[in-house]
Amino acid sequence: MTISPLVSLRERLPQLKLTTDATDLEHYGRDWTRRWTPAPLAIALPADIAEVQTIVRWANETGVAIVPSGGRTGLSGGAVAANGELVVSLERMNRVLGFDAADRTLTVQPGIALEAVHNAAREHGLIYPVDFGARGSCQIGGNIATNAGGIRVIRYGNTRNWIASLKVVTGAGELLELNRSLVKNATGYDLRHLFIGSEGTLGLVVEATLALTEAPPASQVLLFAVPHMQALMQVFGACRSRLQLSAFEFFTDRALHHVRAHGAQAPFEQVSPYYVVTEFDAADEAAQAEALAVFEHCLEQGWVSDGVLSQSEAQARSLWRLREGITESLAPHKPYKNDISVRIGVVPAFLQEMQELLTREYPQFDVVWFGHIGDGNLHINIVKPAEIDYAAFIAECERVTELMCEVLRRHGGSISAEHGIGLVKKAYLASARSVEEIALMRGIRAVLDPRGVMNPGKLF
Amino acid sequence: MTISPLVSLRERLPQLKLTTDATDLEHYGRDWTRRWTPAPLAIALPADIAEVQTIVRWANETGVAIVPSGGRTGLSGGAVAANGELVVSLERMNRVLGFDAADRTLTVQPGIALEAVHNAAREHGLIYPVDFGARGSCQIGGNIATNAGGIRVIRYGNTRNWIASLKVVTGAGELLELNRSLVKNATGYDLRHLFIGSEGTLGLVVEATLALTEAPPASQVLLFAVPHMQALMQVFGACRSRLQLSAFEFFTDRALHHVRAHGAQAPFEQVSPYYVVTEFDAADEAAQAEALAVFEHCLEQGWVSDGVLSQSEAQARSLWRLREGITESLAPHKPYKNDISVRIGVVPAFLQEMQELLTREYPQFDVVWFGHIGDGNLHINIVKPAEIDYAAFIAECERVTELMCEVLRRHGGSISAEHGIGLVKKAYLASARSVEEIALMRGIRAVLDPRGVMNPGKLF
Repeated sequence: MTISPLVSLRERLPQLKLTTDATDLEHYGRDWTRRWTPAPLAIALPADIAEVQTIVRWANETGVAIVPSGGRTGLSGGAVAANGELVVSLERMNRVLGFDAADRTLTVQPGIALEAVHNAAREHGLIYPVDFGARGSCQIGGNIATNAGGIRVIRYGNTRNWIASLKVVTGAGELLELNRSLVKNATGYDLRHLFIGSEGTLGLVVEATLALTEAPPASQVLLFAVPHMQALMQVFGACRSRLQLSAFEFFTDRALHHVRAHGAQAPFEQVSPYYVVTEFDAADEAAQAEALAVFEHCLEQGWVSDGVLSQSEAQARSLWRLREGITESLAPHKPYKNDISVRIGVVPAFLQEMQELLTREYPQFDVVWFGHIGDGNLHINIVKPAEIDYAAFIAECERVTELMCEVLRRHGGSISAEHGIGLVKKAYLASARSVEEIALMRGIRAVLDPRGVMNPGKLF
Repeated sequence: MTISPLVSLRERLPQLKLTTDATDLEHYGRDWTRRWTPAPLAIALPADIAEVQTIVRWANETGVAIVPSGGRTGLSGGAVAANGELVVSLERMNRVLGFDAADRTLTVQPGIALEAVHNAAREHGLIYPVDFGARGSCQIGGNIATNAGGIRVIRYGNTRNWIASLKVVTGAGELLELNRSLVKNATGYDLRHLFIGSEGTLGLVVEATLALTEAPPASQVLLFAVPHMQALMQVFGACRSRLQLSAFEFFTDRALHHVRAHGAQAPFEQVSPYYVVTEFDAADEAAQAEALAVFEHCLEQGWVSDGVLSQSEAQARSLWRLREGITESLAPHKPYKNDISVRIGVVPAFLQEMQELLTREYPQFDVVWFGHIGDGNLHINIVKPAEIDYAAFIAECERVTELMCEVLRRHGGSISAEHGIGLVKKAYLASARSVEEIALMRGIRAVLDPRGVMNPGKLF
């Protein structure tokens, strides 16, 4: 009979908060995907960096795999522990450690929620501009591990752009302090950028210094009804050239249907196949007048059939809810998700092909589209018909994803725009990265995590 | 007698432009540093990616080292070939390959000059915002290999921020197409960012797609005379909080002395120990009035003793020349250069310590300071006194650089802000990166360049 490796972990770290309670194993063993049955060895909740380092060294000695765990709001299975791994939850390391007014940075522990980061930044009269629907539950460490994107990428870019400095514990248990908040630092390979988006396969983020910026001027929100798909990018072109955009999102009538079933009001009397929500700077009357002029121009061109301009913050929020409520309204249906992207220039041709493919391949399924079309990112949710069992449904969706990969390959697109590869898209990684690139990624992984203890089986 | 490996290269690529002319060997074998005697085996000037790949594969077979070569305006010896290497100059691959209006990107070959990139962007009504003095001679491939910074980092960041996509040939001769201009692409490690700033030690950049942006509003330039060092960051704080800055540079009276000796006019009647050049958006009268208000505020506080606001583009250019002419005015003196940075928050304490150190350690040398103080980057040039021989001068400067490293360590700074490590700062890499980080960098290098043919001896 083997002694559980947990015995040696407890010996090494008597103070470590460690649980094997069944409810905890289930809670911490999964993310927002629900395709795998959680089966971790235990859950460790370290209180500081030293504990994280000791855990990783112990893992190297015992061969127990580690699954780093943030808010587990991920949609790729990156935080799933289904094979006896030790889940290392950073949720107790959730404090703001400091603010520097000259640097305009906020230093935080990895377990802090994105929303708490937003609030802390605002207390200093600045903003942390990365934002998305899961802001209340997701954690900054997870945002960094997936290079999270969201609704304002069009203006501010992904999480990558806002990481001034990173402390990580590598797969070998070494503590690295990457970049130390320097604006300019030409001293070899930027390992900070290697860790951003590495999905916990190289090590754990244990501290981050985030760059903040000034709040933008007051904004307004425009909701358009768009009569046909080809008009979407024309509306985008008109808005981008004349307004200072911070978001440009679209969704279909099927998406609106689900949000309405979840309690939202229909925005227009007439149904429209597509809708656009766009947010833009509207500091003065001139900017507001320009927005109306853009609206009228789009109407004249036949690119939009109706529109509403927010007249208050409350109205702006309720217009946003039509877009932001989609994921939540779909969640009870456990939809199969695709999160794909192409470069902006090929969006029109790509949308056309995707629509044809989805109509052809999913004749009886409820297909819900929406996404950050201003940055080339399309979310496709397939809702399971009640009469089909779950495994058969997933198999059917995976068949279509294979076809989608073909289209993506042809258009130079990506099978994962912002959710990550994790477990869910592992089989399709080769559609977005070459054989040589994947071999190099594996080689780099072996350098940073020679024993392969960090999140094995994720990404590749 | 061994047959020159060039025989097999000529056999493999009969069309390759290859020269062993003594003038070429000297011209292509060095960069703007003048400390090493060029001694390359030969100079290859490939015409396309396929030729580059074949050269790298040949190097792997024969063991001949490759030094990638752009405009060779570098100041770190990164492009020096002093040990029988094959210099691979990308200068014939210097075309614009395409522009995409929806993506707002420009695709270029690596040998195009930065200034030609600026011009091409402007032809499409956009800008490529990375800029610095060597714009006419440096090449985009070299900019990428060193993650070049320059005079507008405070607003636009370094080269890294503007690379949408990269084609590289690795040290193993593999062609990688990294990121394909996707705004969102969460498919594992971002190898693009690994190559940016790798100083030619992982492979060669053979194509790049650059992100462009809208031109900023009309700008004005303010030149301040600053009476004491402590006031520099106070002036910066006042300017940053009230103006939209695109540059904030400082220089000392010694620097002005050299620029004047090179033909420039003194800006003020009175001599001042420090000067600041700042550029800011001045689209309308309100912005211009705000700039004057900032100036008056700084005067009242005693932070500045005089100032001049540009009234025309010609005057703005002539004010800029006082700052941009420094490097050129010093070049004939072959100065020893330090290019160091700290985070913005520690600049005041750091400047104080550096001034004390330089005054104490270089009592008889002409020490010229200037730099991008708005992003924490300080350039220090030591001019060789006529009576000291060059080797003794360098030895003395290296002794002081050791002391400087101590100060940098204490302040979490970097021994290379934007020039890179190359040969010049190799001995000091460990002051900015930990032993573990350097070991990891070597490990990663071995993955991408297993035979070690790419720019060996540079960086580490």
